[in-house]
Amino acid sequence: MKPFLEALGDIPHSQEAAALRVKSADFSWFSPIMSAALAGRTAEVVIAPRNEEDVVRIAAACAKHRVPLVARGAGTGNFGQAVPLARGAVVEMLGLDRILFQKGNIARAQAGIRIGVLDEVLRKQGRELRMHPSTKKLATLGGFVGGGHAGVGTVNWGILRDRGNLLGLKVITVEETPRMLELRGDDVNLVHHAYGVNGLVTEVELPLAPAYEWLDTIVVFDDFARAVEFGMALATQDGILKKLVSVHAWPVPGYFVPLRKYLPGGKAAALLMIGAETREPFDSLVRQFGGTTTYSVPESGIYEYTWGHTTMHALRADRSLTYLVCIFPREDPVGTIKRVHAKLGSEVFLHLEFKRFNGYMTAEGVPLFRYQGFEQMVRLYKALEAEGARIANAHTFLLQNGGMKDLDTAQIDFKRSVDPHLLMNPGKVAGLDDLPGGISGTALEAAQLPASGWAY
Amino acid sequence: MKPFLEALGDIPHSQEAAALRVKSADFSWFSPIMSAALAGRTAEVVIAPRNEEDVVRIAAACAKHRVPLVARGAGTGNFGQAVPLARGAVVEMLGLDRILFQKGNIARAQAGIRIGVLDEVLRKQGRELRMHPSTKKLATLGGFVGGGHAGVGTVNWGILRDRGNLLGLKVITVEETPRMLELRGDDVNLVHHAYGVNGLVTEVELPLAPAYEWLDTIVVFDDFARAVEFGMALATQDGILKKLVSVHAWPVPGYFVPLRKYLPGGKAAALLMIGAETREPFDSLVRQFGGTTTYSVPESGIYEYTWGHTTMHALRADRSLTYLVCIFPREDPVGTIKRVHAKLGSEVFLHLEFKRFNGYMTAEGVPLFRYQGFEQMVRLYKALEAEGARIANAHTFLLQNGGMKDLDTAQIDFKRSVDPHLLMNPGKVAGLDDLPGGISGTALEAAQLPASGWAY
Repeated sequence: MKPFLEALGDIPHSQEAAALRVKSADFSWFSPIMSAALAGRTAEVVIAPRNEEDVVRIAAACAKHRVPLVARGAGTGNFGQAVPLARGAVVEMLGLDRILFQKGNIARAQAGIRIGVLDEVLRKQGRELRMHPSTKKLATLGGFVGGGHAGVGTVNWGILRDRGNLLGLKVITVEETPRMLELRGDDVNLVHHAYGVNGLVTEVELPLAPAYEWLDTIVVFDDFARAVEFGMALATQDGILKKLVSVHAWPVPGYFVPLRKYLPGGKAAALLMIGAETREPFDSLVRQFGGTTTYSVPESGIYEYTWGHTTMHALRADRSLTYLVCIFPREDPVGTIKRVHAKLGSEVFLHLEFKRFNGYMTAEGVPLFRYQGFEQMVRLYKALEAEGARIANAHTFLLQNGGMKDLDTAQIDFKRSVDPHLLMNPGKVAGLDDLPGGISGTALEAAQLPASGWAY
Repeated sequence: MKPFLEALGDIPHSQEAAALRVKSADFSWFSPIMSAALAGRTAEVVIAPRNEEDVVRIAAACAKHRVPLVARGAGTGNFGQAVPLARGAVVEMLGLDRILFQKGNIARAQAGIRIGVLDEVLRKQGRELRMHPSTKKLATLGGFVGGGHAGVGTVNWGILRDRGNLLGLKVITVEETPRMLELRGDDVNLVHHAYGVNGLVTEVELPLAPAYEWLDTIVVFDDFARAVEFGMALATQDGILKKLVSVHAWPVPGYFVPLRKYLPGGKAAALLMIGAETREPFDSLVRQFGGTTTYSVPESGIYEYTWGHTTMHALRADRSLTYLVCIFPREDPVGTIKRVHAKLGSEVFLHLEFKRFNGYMTAEGVPLFRYQGFEQMVRLYKALEAEGARIANAHTFLLQNGGMKDLDTAQIDFKRSVDPHLLMNPGKVAGLDDLPGGISGTALEAAQLPASGWAY
């Protein structure tokens, strides 16, 4: 480690225990299984590059001295993406926070910029990001591209992987003499959602959406099934502007303490972002489905109760809870959701995010349940699969086992070309850069949970 | 008629034979059946109101003197919407051409404004209309609302009827003392696509889309089935910007003479408007489907070969052709289109417009064929229905028989309340304001063609 640290020169870095602990953690504590599996995994050094030149020097030094490295944004991932399994260095990208250009409906920025900061600048130009995670205030652009997949806005634009949502990425290889690659077209998906195993992303180019005047809105329903029907109707009403359609079965809304007075006990709730311009037709739709609008105010952060934040609020209220992630089938999402709720509703509290995905509208389920052990989780996964839902394994840090990323030969070849010494986030790609000694115990069990995958 | 003409006072009007003939015609000559059925139908006077006050005076005079009236935009409708069946007055709305306001993503204009003029003004504010007919240069806003249903942009926003695409309408009743009604929310659909039978529309309020930089683009394929798969893939790629996805089986592209060098003989062609910002991912999609891009230039009117214009170009080239209108089923549009092409392709030349409709992506078919008589048309309608396509009867001037407008009790009650003397476009609503003597001959036969309707 010492020659490596010397090679860093004046690049800011720290070996303080507190810094190492904090900067080696992410939100994988959402999962009791991963929490156990990742306990005690910390880096040896946290490095904070100030610019792209620093990143190149870090990459060269890691390659030369064979030091493993993990790129880190704000650490808001849920799947251990940013947890260093093989010690080495955590490279915190927050210093790379410049907007490089905004031209019409395209913007390019450095990877370490906070998504919320970028979005605020864009809003002043009448534009906004097509989508952002519920962690937008904290999360970085590079972190979203490397570890995320969708978010607020996905109901309109599909997931980040869908063609057209990522225009370009600049990637630095981890070699003695690092190269800079510009990935465009379909090639962006080599690096997107790859947990940083195949290149250090320094720049991201994105298409923009027009900025609408959004209204944070809550509509409640006596009946969850009706709320789901409403959610799908709203999500597919092409003429009504929306950015978020998030539907929650009771008791989930009960965990949203600051919103409590808009969320009557026992009722299902839809948390929404609606365009002010189409408020009247939206009201007609609410009337048609018999919902009650309890809240509607200019945009003020309702998205921080949806997507990943739903789980966070629930776990803050009740640490016995955990979650799983599934996607309802394209053919009959509403029917499948109703069946799952009817059969499992007393054990599994449904939380849905309506999303476009591969060109079709469906809903992602992020249900909550009281964790009783591994066998229960296997049972629930299988019960969901039996109804036709497809599972993404949210309890493993192994990239392929998550079920979303399909690491084909082209991906593995690309990984080897940009990271010939297999130093980038090692331990995440099973069969290629396994941890010394392999994985075992809960980590192994978690990796073996069903993951029917998200492709269809 | 004389007291009526006196009541008009200084409102410009004409009784010249040439004016009466021209202003009583629309594009119903596309249909050989309707062409025969409507032959010789002309008004007694053409009136050109200069402003809303004139419209009110005309409405009052019509009511007082029991003079039938038909509102007219530019006469670009295909279904006899603007043809006066019961003589009387044609009210040409072109004088009401003011933009009343544009505020963010909402605009309101008078009904007689040319759609193209409005769209051009909006473009300067970074906005555009969500959708427009292929006749945008000529057609008026009120004509589109009264007689149209969809167009370029529908692939993104759904049809005009879909909630949110029409925000408000101002309507003047035909009574001795006309009232002014403001219809909003779901009520706009009382008047939309009602052929002007229930109120004179003077103002239209619309939501706007952001103006993108569109590229007129042609992609050709050896195989029509592949072109259809490509069309659906593009239409449903949420991340790729598009405004028009229009797919044509050979020989249809052969009728587009000015584009001939981009349309190789025998090949299927997709005529597209693509966002420049997502050109790269679009190119990836073209490669995936094995298409060849023969043309891609900044927006220059390619839409004038699509939607209704396709039929016009074909009929200009070959007057033995006619057309029909169908919609492919939500469940399996691509499979149904392929079956229809395989079974009927030698007689019926498919032309498709991909469109969102009721929240789902599908394709409208406007196939061309050489007209051999009424029996052939019935046979083709039935053959299409047998494959699962739903038919809109494009060969009748009767509102209900077109298959798109469902005139329920609420609609009829509304018609009676705004037009108590049944003077508005009489003859278009069967059973309510039938023509004296009823319809007969080809008009009757045409009205009896199958119309399975467009709702699903």
